[in-house]
Amino acid sequence: MRRTFKRLLSLAAAVGLVSSAAVAQSELEKIMKERGLTQDDILAAAKTYTPSGGRDKYIVFSSGGQSGQIMVYGVPSMRILKFIGVFTPEPWQGWGYDDDTKKVLKEGWYRGKPITWGDTHHPAISETNGVYDGKWLAINDKANPRIAIIDLKDFVTKQIVVNPVFKSDHGGAFFTPNSEYILEACQYGAPFDNEYHPMEEYADVYRGGVTCWKFDHENGRVIKDESFVIEMPPYMQDLSDAGKEMSYGWGFTNSFNSELYTGGIEKGLPPFEAGMSRNDTDYLHVYNWRKLAELAKDPKNVKVINGIKVIPIEVAVKNDCLFLIPEPKSPHGVDVSPDGRYIVVCGKLDTHATVYDFKKIMEAVKNHDFAGKDPYGIPIIDMKKAMHCQAELGLGPLHNQYGPKWKTEGEIYTSLYVDSQVVKWDYLTCEVKDRVNVNYNIGHLCGMEGKTEDPQGEYIIALNKLAIDRFNPIGPLHPQNHQLIDISGKKMKLLYDMPVPLGEPHQAVAIRASKLHPEVRYPMGTNPFTGKVHEGKTLAGQEKIVRKGNHVYVYGTLVRSHINPEHVTVNKGDIVTFYLTNLERAEDETHGFTVDWYNVHASLEPGKTVAVTFKADREGVFPYYCTEFCSALHLEMMGYLLVKDPNKKYKSVKKIKLKKMSKEQLMKEYKKTVALNEATKKVIQSVVKFLKENHYEKYPVVKQLVEDAMDQFNKVPAEEKKAEEALKKGDIETAINFQYQAWQYLVKTADVGIRAKDLLVRKLATPMSEAAKRGEAAFAEGGCNGCHVIGKVSSGPDLVGVLKRHENGEKWVAEFIKNPASKYNDPYVKAMIDYFNLRMPNQHMSDQEIKDIIEYLKWVDENANLF
Amino acid sequence: MRRTFKRLLSLAAAVGLVSSAAVAQSELEKIMKERGLTQDDILAAAKTYTPSGGRDKYIVFSSGGQSGQIMVYGVPSMRILKFIGVFTPEPWQGWGYDDDTKKVLKEGWYRGKPITWGDTHHPAISETNGVYDGKWLAINDKANPRIAIIDLKDFVTKQIVVNPVFKSDHGGAFFTPNSEYILEACQYGAPFDNEYHPMEEYADVYRGGVTCWKFDHENGRVIKDESFVIEMPPYMQDLSDAGKEMSYGWGFTNSFNSELYTGGIEKGLPPFEAGMSRNDTDYLHVYNWRKLAELAKDPKNVKVINGIKVIPIEVAVKNDCLFLIPEPKSPHGVDVSPDGRYIVVCGKLDTHATVYDFKKIMEAVKNHDFAGKDPYGIPIIDMKKAMHCQAELGLGPLHNQYGPKWKTEGEIYTSLYVDSQVVKWDYLTCEVKDRVNVNYNIGHLCGMEGKTEDPQGEYIIALNKLAIDRFNPIGPLHPQNHQLIDISGKKMKLLYDMPVPLGEPHQAVAIRASKLHPEVRYPMGTNPFTGKVHEGKTLAGQEKIVRKGNHVYVYGTLVRSHINPEHVTVNKGDIVTFYLTNLERAEDETHGFTVDWYNVHASLEPGKTVAVTFKADREGVFPYYCTEFCSALHLEMMGYLLVKDPNKKYKSVKKIKLKKMSKEQLMKEYKKTVALNEATKKVIQSVVKFLKENHYEKYPVVKQLVEDAMDQFNKVPAEEKKAEEALKKGDIETAINFQYQAWQYLVKTADVGIRAKDLLVRKLATPMSEAAKRGEAAFAEGGCNGCHVIGKVSSGPDLVGVLKRHENGEKWVAEFIKNPASKYNDPYVKAMIDYFNLRMPNQHMSDQEIKDIIEYLKWVDENANLF
Repeated sequence: MRRTFKRLLSLAAAVGLVSSAAVAQSELEKIMKERGLTQDDILAAAKTYTPSGGRDKYIVFSSGGQSGQIMVYGVPSMRILKFIGVFTPEPWQGWGYDDDTKKVLKEGWYRGKPITWGDTHHPAISETNGVYDGKWLAINDKANPRIAIIDLKDFVTKQIVVNPVFKSDHGGAFFTPNSEYILEACQYGAPFDNEYHPMEEYADVYRGGVTCWKFDHENGRVIKDESFVIEMPPYMQDLSDAGKEMSYGWGFTNSFNSELYTGGIEKGLPPFEAGMSRNDTDYLHVYNWRKLAELAKDPKNVKVINGIKVIPIEVAVKNDCLFLIPEPKSPHGVDVSPDGRYIVVCGKLDTHATVYDFKKIMEAVKNHDFAGKDPYGIPIIDMKKAMHCQAELGLGPLHNQYGPKWKTEGEIYTSLYVDSQVVKWDYLTCEVKDRVNVNYNIGHLCGMEGKTEDPQGEYIIALNKLAIDRFNPIGPLHPQNHQLIDISGKKMKLLYDMPVPLGEPHQAVAIRASKLHPEVRYPMGTNPFTGKVHEGKTLAGQEKIVRKGNHVYVYGTLVRSHINPEHVTVNKGDIVTFYLTNLERAEDETHGFTVDWYNVHASLEPGKTVAVTFKADREGVFPYYCTEFCSALHLEMMGYLLVKDPNKKYKSVKKIKLKKMSKEQLMKEYKKTVALNEATKKVIQSVVKFLKENHYEKYPVVKQLVEDAMDQFNKVPAEEKKAEEALKKGDIETAINFQYQAWQYLVKTADVGIRAKDLLVRKLATPMSEAAKRGEAAFAEGGCNGCHVIGKVSSGPDLVGVLKRHENGEKWVAEFIKNPASKYNDPYVKAMIDYFNLRMPNQHMSDQEIKDIIEYLKWVDENANLF
Repeated sequence: MRRTFKRLLSLAAAVGLVSSAAVAQSELEKIMKERGLTQDDILAAAKTYTPSGGRDKYIVFSSGGQSGQIMVYGVPSMRILKFIGVFTPEPWQGWGYDDDTKKVLKEGWYRGKPITWGDTHHPAISETNGVYDGKWLAINDKANPRIAIIDLKDFVTKQIVVNPVFKSDHGGAFFTPNSEYILEACQYGAPFDNEYHPMEEYADVYRGGVTCWKFDHENGRVIKDESFVIEMPPYMQDLSDAGKEMSYGWGFTNSFNSELYTGGIEKGLPPFEAGMSRNDTDYLHVYNWRKLAELAKDPKNVKVINGIKVIPIEVAVKNDCLFLIPEPKSPHGVDVSPDGRYIVVCGKLDTHATVYDFKKIMEAVKNHDFAGKDPYGIPIIDMKKAMHCQAELGLGPLHNQYGPKWKTEGEIYTSLYVDSQVVKWDYLTCEVKDRVNVNYNIGHLCGMEGKTEDPQGEYIIALNKLAIDRFNPIGPLHPQNHQLIDISGKKMKLLYDMPVPLGEPHQAVAIRASKLHPEVRYPMGTNPFTGKVHEGKTLAGQEKIVRKGNHVYVYGTLVRSHINPEHVTVNKGDIVTFYLTNLERAEDETHGFTVDWYNVHASLEPGKTVAVTFKADREGVFPYYCTEFCSALHLEMMGYLLVKDPNKKYKSVKKIKLKKMSKEQLMKEYKKTVALNEATKKVIQSVVKFLKENHYEKYPVVKQLVEDAMDQFNKVPAEEKKAEEALKKGDIETAINFQYQAWQYLVKTADVGIRAKDLLVRKLATPMSEAAKRGEAAFAEGGCNGCHVIGKVSSGPDLVGVLKRHENGEKWVAEFIKNPASKYNDPYVKAMIDYFNLRMPNQHMSDQEIKDIIEYLKWVDENANLF
């Protein structure tokens, strides 16, 4: 504690006291004053701010709520990296706008009708030995009970599975410790069949349950035929958790309508909320999924309903696989401790968290020591006999996450909805340790791998349901507020408020970024949804248009900056399929594709092949184009779909007379383009020389960029050859355009090459002294860089080597900066004045500044080879 | 400059030098070291970090690219506040999932077919006298040429207008200075009719143009009948800008295919990108929209094509309303200076920005001083005669934004795509002032109101097209990167990298936050799309179900936490309309609504009425529920739609026997609920007393919360009355549930009331001394708050008043903290030990810490009335 206190004092010195007393004019103090920031704010800023190119330590996958998507963000920067299209079409990703993604979404339709949204609730990361392995992500749709699987290699949804017996699903998805199964609990009780049954038969016919989806961990797909449902009473099952270590093989699911209340406000009865919150306790469901999975293999033990195996309650009970334990009023979270021994349940209408001991539960099971049976015949274990301890936490406790000191200190964090707090406590002793206010009304909370066997430290995220006054107002619909909390000290500290701009995230899971290994490109011609070569894979030179009956197949390619083919003519009524392959290998060089007014869109990451199919049922001229700003010429990356009515006669129209160039004028232009290309090549060669000499191949990102540049450069000879051939045939116009095409490739080579060079320079340059750094700043602040660009002749001479250009160079330059006019008659300076038609002005630099600038110029000369 | 330099030095002292030398152990330094942050990073963090509840100075509206949406974020925090649904359905907002929003989206369909996405490009804020007025936002869809209007009162899209003659639209939307018109330029040339015309007739039949959409500035709607199209040659018009001040009434639009090239890579011809970039210049189109608007009123001057008025080229030319000026190779931006005199155009394949002088243009127009005519008969003004100056900026200049010193220093910023830089230069002298590297390949850039008559300072945002290595990898599809640049100093500085998680934003516009006045609720029963009372408006007590033929209308309400009605039974094949009104008045108290498997979803902000209609074509039981986490009992906010097949006979099933409670047991439970309610009321009354005594009504946000709490509280008596009535009738079960319902309202009252109280406490408390602040930290870090919660009896006694509880209180408490065991035999301490079954432990606090804690406890006592 003494150490901590000392640190606090020294912080005050570094940030506050010193700047306010000793160095009153400090820049930091000025900003703090202007922006009303406290010392704590500066510390929080320092703990979260991530400079350009910086990496986050954790990646969070948050459900998108009613957006139907998944939100991905980094911790501690709290910057959102991607919304992944899951249950709702999303055109940027082509999700639901090209053929292959439409197929995945269609898997999620039910009883023949399209479902175009979802209410995502609980994301889950696949596990190996109870620890996140970073391979797959699963998430449920509460509204239309479904599970989706996302591949963490490319962050793309690969499968959607419909639950054919549930009508609602709040409490999915939860992986078992080796991803054998994904648990998905039913929520609102309803008949398992698809028939009408009146509310009066709620207890009799309506049912709840837990579906155990068999998961192919290797290939990341749910195997429907090997999955099964555990039938349960319509107690409105809520969240689940899978046991681990000593409780491995068991599942735990809570519920909130043990009253079996059926509402009726329109009939003058109390509403659901009243009747469902009447009992002091509801039921924790404890079941042996491992044994049930074995039982489900025998057809005698299951009923098949709507194509899925259902294990009836009586079968589960008979085989000692299903038990109930009372749990506090209307519970929300059920969270198994990292060692699998304790199960912590919070009742949202109770002030306590209850800690159950799995050993005690098993003791009761073993001894058949039950307090009775529920109306469905399920044995009830006495709550007190199963309990380890209870902690009084406050109003509205909901969910729990474990901290890294779970073993020694029982470290656990719980969200309090009504009190708007996060409480830190010890689940071994049920003592409260600390609490922090959040804004406002927290639902779930997200620890760093906080529900695995290996919880990490440092942060907890509060997923608050109300923002109210936290952000700039943007109309009646507010963002949610995810608040980052520092848990690394004894006292929790609020670090950052992140508004959620889309959807109402329900729960989030965080994983160490180091466990993720996403790819940057697909093997050429891949269909990401099969992982195999796409039927429409097309390489450069293989482009073609094939008609089969009234179906026209276009095999096309995209590369900076053209689509091949550029004209496609079809008949009205034809079905048209565009197969398109992005030939790029460069990271982040995505192309897009759309045909105007035909409501299709595809995102083509490097190497991917997509298909878009539509009926060309409207006559006319429809531009298609690349929808990504992929190069300086992206607007020119386009083509035309022409849809002809085969039953119509068209008259030719020619009215505009275009001016034609003479042969001499054309030849002049041709030569000009050839000269331009030669000049551009020289620039490229100098860059290439620089890159080679400096061993670019040692730096992976630079190497990648150089490969990309060379991809472009290697296309040049073919275009030049085409130009020469056209010239031989006397078609100078076409020859010119092919030379321009060669130039386009040269420009793209230069674009990427320069980026590679700049990156390499930064990697190679010698470190700057503090004086040189100050000098660089003074050089900029003094406006020197308005005329002098290091490494280039700009509005003034290049200053690389300037110190060696003159005798006593340092002195000469210092004098010249101090008093430029004194040297206007120096022959060299005179020549420069003539050349640039500008005189070096007096910028009134101080002696110290001039000294520093000289240091900077020395550094420039040290690194002269890099400019 | 000297001042600046001093500031730099003192910054080093405050952040770096002192902490590294004098106070080596500082917390800040530790964080900097751990996270690898430099001094510049800390300054950038301080300039952007926005603590909880802080406000951004500027709000940015960014196009969402192929997402079809608009992204809203704050500057300088760079936190994304909302994605507004525009052209693509978005379920969180109910956008495209309820009846009224479907209607708006349907306005954007064309030739009878649904269009369910868009490629948004250029957002524009409505203007009054050339300055943003914060009322309306317009944006275009490039793929399916349309314009959408967003209301900045509620941030909701209110209108979508289809362009019936264009087939593509890149260069919209641009408001004229008093929002008279929205300019929308065509991009890819195509026939204005809907017929097929072969590519060979490109010059003859294909056309470009600019549509002038008449705008009703008061009501925020485009008036289609008063709008018109200016026909132009198929030069592929690109971006536009409206003249202002001296150039008021004129429009400027550039283009990039003056070559009229038509591609043909599939025929062995050079691709579009080559042929379109052949000429050294393209054409800037200069037109008098004001005069053309007058001309369009005379039917003689227009052709009506697909229902819209088109002014033919020859009419525009004849009336001196359309001119061309050569502009550098393949231009992108065309940006009029704040005083309307200069038009700056950048050619992306040229290294220059060209500044045109409107005075010179008008001189040429007046004197009919033309260099010739294009093939369409449009007069061409000599480029040199119209030019003010040219600045050599670098490779790939694209767009421009003006800075606050535009008048005196010609302050302008230009993006360089290939060089990946932002250049600051002077458009009056064409001198370059400064440049900063960005990462990577910047497209547009966004100044703060940087294209209005009143550009603001401080920031420029670089909208970079490639992120490559800037963020944690998330698969082949990367986010874009918006980089915030500080322009307040002489030298531009990179402050922050913001990944864009959805879509490829094309352009963004920023407005001072103080100009926006969004509403937090709708007047009860509003239809936001008409601004009038919704036909389905329903107040509490008016809920009903009405059948008209096979159409069932449900008039329902939502309020925390129930939907009324809770059961709706219809026949299979019925059309069902749910009219729903959110009865809440509380800010941020949004409800959602869905019926499982029926693919509808609505977002109900406070006061809003929505309609959702669907055909109940599937038999069965379908839960409906509130999709927002609106209170602790949100899961219980649900109901059932039961769809019965009228042609089927159903057998009744009753098999489960539920236990019944005896009358005595029921009465016991009834009394328990009444007692619970009384106890809860007492808590509420104490909160209310506190709020009243402390004049909550003086603080608007607190007042709002109290009103919200009282809304809930006022519902209690009616429920209690219902309970008493049921009791009289002998229906104790129902009586109990009504008492529970009363309790639900009490819980919600307490929830909001506590939030109000906490807010008020923060507003009322006396300021803390530095010593007291240290004491509060020590209290927490020492673990004191594990047992002692200020204002509450927890695991230890409440410490409010502790200093007065003992004689020589300060000394007593100090001694007790220092050596608790010394007082274990003190009678008071003994009593406490017995009561809590805990002894105060020795936490080994230093003397300074104890002193500070005493100061903190003094502050607590000063504010005793607040706890």
